[in-house]
Amino acid sequence: MNVLFASTKEQPEFWFPLLRKALPADRFFAWPDTNGGDIDVALVATHPHGTFANLPRLKLIQSLWMGVENIIGDTGLPKGVPVARLIDPGMVAAMGETVIACVLDWHRHFWCYRKFQAERVWKRRRQFLASDRTIGILGLGELGSSAAAKLRALGFNVAGWSRRPKRLEGVHCSTDLDEILSRSDALVCLLPLTEKTKGIINSKTLSLVRRDGCVINVARGAHLVVPDLLAALNSGHLAHAYLDVFETEPLPADSPLWSHPGVTVTPHIAALTEPRTSVGKIAENIERLRRGEAPLNTVDFAAGY
Amino acid sequence: MNVLFASTKEQPEFWFPLLRKALPADRFFAWPDTNGGDIDVALVATHPHGTFANLPRLKLIQSLWMGVENIIGDTGLPKGVPVARLIDPGMVAAMGETVIACVLDWHRHFWCYRKFQAERVWKRRRQFLASDRTIGILGLGELGSSAAAKLRALGFNVAGWSRRPKRLEGVHCSTDLDEILSRSDALVCLLPLTEKTKGIINSKTLSLVRRDGCVINVARGAHLVVPDLLAALNSGHLAHAYLDVFETEPLPADSPLWSHPGVTVTPHIAALTEPRTSVGKIAENIERLRRGEAPLNTVDFAAGY
Repeated sequence: MNVLFASTKEQPEFWFPLLRKALPADRFFAWPDTNGGDIDVALVATHPHGTFANLPRLKLIQSLWMGVENIIGDTGLPKGVPVARLIDPGMVAAMGETVIACVLDWHRHFWCYRKFQAERVWKRRRQFLASDRTIGILGLGELGSSAAAKLRALGFNVAGWSRRPKRLEGVHCSTDLDEILSRSDALVCLLPLTEKTKGIINSKTLSLVRRDGCVINVARGAHLVVPDLLAALNSGHLAHAYLDVFETEPLPADSPLWSHPGVTVTPHIAALTEPRTSVGKIAENIERLRRGEAPLNTVDFAAGY
Repeated sequence: MNVLFASTKEQPEFWFPLLRKALPADRFFAWPDTNGGDIDVALVATHPHGTFANLPRLKLIQSLWMGVENIIGDTGLPKGVPVARLIDPGMVAAMGETVIACVLDWHRHFWCYRKFQAERVWKRRRQFLASDRTIGILGLGELGSSAAAKLRALGFNVAGWSRRPKRLEGVHCSTDLDEILSRSDALVCLLPLTEKTKGIINSKTLSLVRRDGCVINVARGAHLVVPDLLAALNSGHLAHAYLDVFETEPLPADSPLWSHPGVTVTPHIAALTEPRTSVGKIAENIERLRRGEAPLNTVDFAAGY
């Protein structure tokens, strides 16, 4: 197989040694070298414009990321070529770590103790037990389910919202968004970005989250209406927000989010694809293609992810 | 039984309703009301000077905290009266949460991203997997063992040091301090404070911890030699320190720790005794006393905890 690596964000030098070891019979090319158009598989993550223009033999587009909205939003996407999401166990674990880090930072008031430290103030806040708190998770796919299980293991109550009915051990699952929001002390967004989930965190939904709670957005910037979040922070309804993703990335230097005392900004690092743990999943899909089998984790274009 | 509550830190109004419900036949007094000296059990946490002076019928001193150095260091401690530590499941859970919060804050570079945010800098640091890191835990009692299990569940390697040999599932245990330190990327102190553990985190021990690691002191301030820690941070050997405990508390306003960019200061809140989860343990010891049985979790005066 001839495999094209096409990304404006991922570096081929980190991937090629591992890919060549996992797939010693295949040949790898880094865009714009498309081997004269003779490419079977494209590995992409925020691919350059026109990546798919002259690849007549393309049989699989394998995302290097879990989120695929940049791929399915490309008007040059070739028809009939399956697109596969990457379910990287290292990335799922990393997301779990970030969600737990943010939930505990809020739950144990570290966000507040940092303000006290800046003022040299020694003052204790009331301690809550994990069982006093309900963490609401929007999206119960691979990332949401894994985060839910880890939060359960720490003793938190977990409520989860998904488009399709789900059942998860020990998690209160519902397809009724308002019901999940009104139970939630902390809200974690792990949804795919689709027309239906765009702007889902807004003044109406935030008003249902319980007072003194927090919002953790580790999905996509467009899930969140920033002015509505700032209003919920400024009114004192929300205690804190943890934002890893933004409609424009890098976050522009003049964004009010950088300096808002109620906002923790991180540079889209909640969970990075980890080449060491994901190369096996990519190799598996390429081997399936070689054997004439359907690739795993393909995108449902009707659902948008 | 007549029970005296004597603490300069814990508030009887939070405890008495729960104690009266758990022990309806007993009578409760808040120091300095000692019922004319007719007291069977003293519940103490940083007790007022002279608490034990005129309590001739005292049969049990039950700490409200896990750490008992203030009790056993009291020269007025009556001879022959057992002292019991409090093993509060809520406090053990809280400590696990704090240790995980600090480990993840360091592991996922949040301490560094906060500096970037203050400068409006969008820059990513290399992501590590939990399995790339070894967390060294000093002290493998109730708190250390519980934290170790939670860190293992998140995929971290865990190494643990204890005075007496221990075996914990999946944890590299040793009584050789240098061996544990030299494996550790992050060092968590959960030791009791004794003559042997005082100053255990010093320039020599810190030099053995791996570069770019962190120190998390959630035990007692006197475990740590502050100038040695600051030197290890200033030289770049350590990435960050999380300090919840200090030799003088509240931490004096002129302490250099408040404003050091490499130090997170919290006001001794890593794990507070939780009346809801600990009253059952206190009631159990009082019921044992009533039945003439030995109380649980009594202090070993030779070991110092």
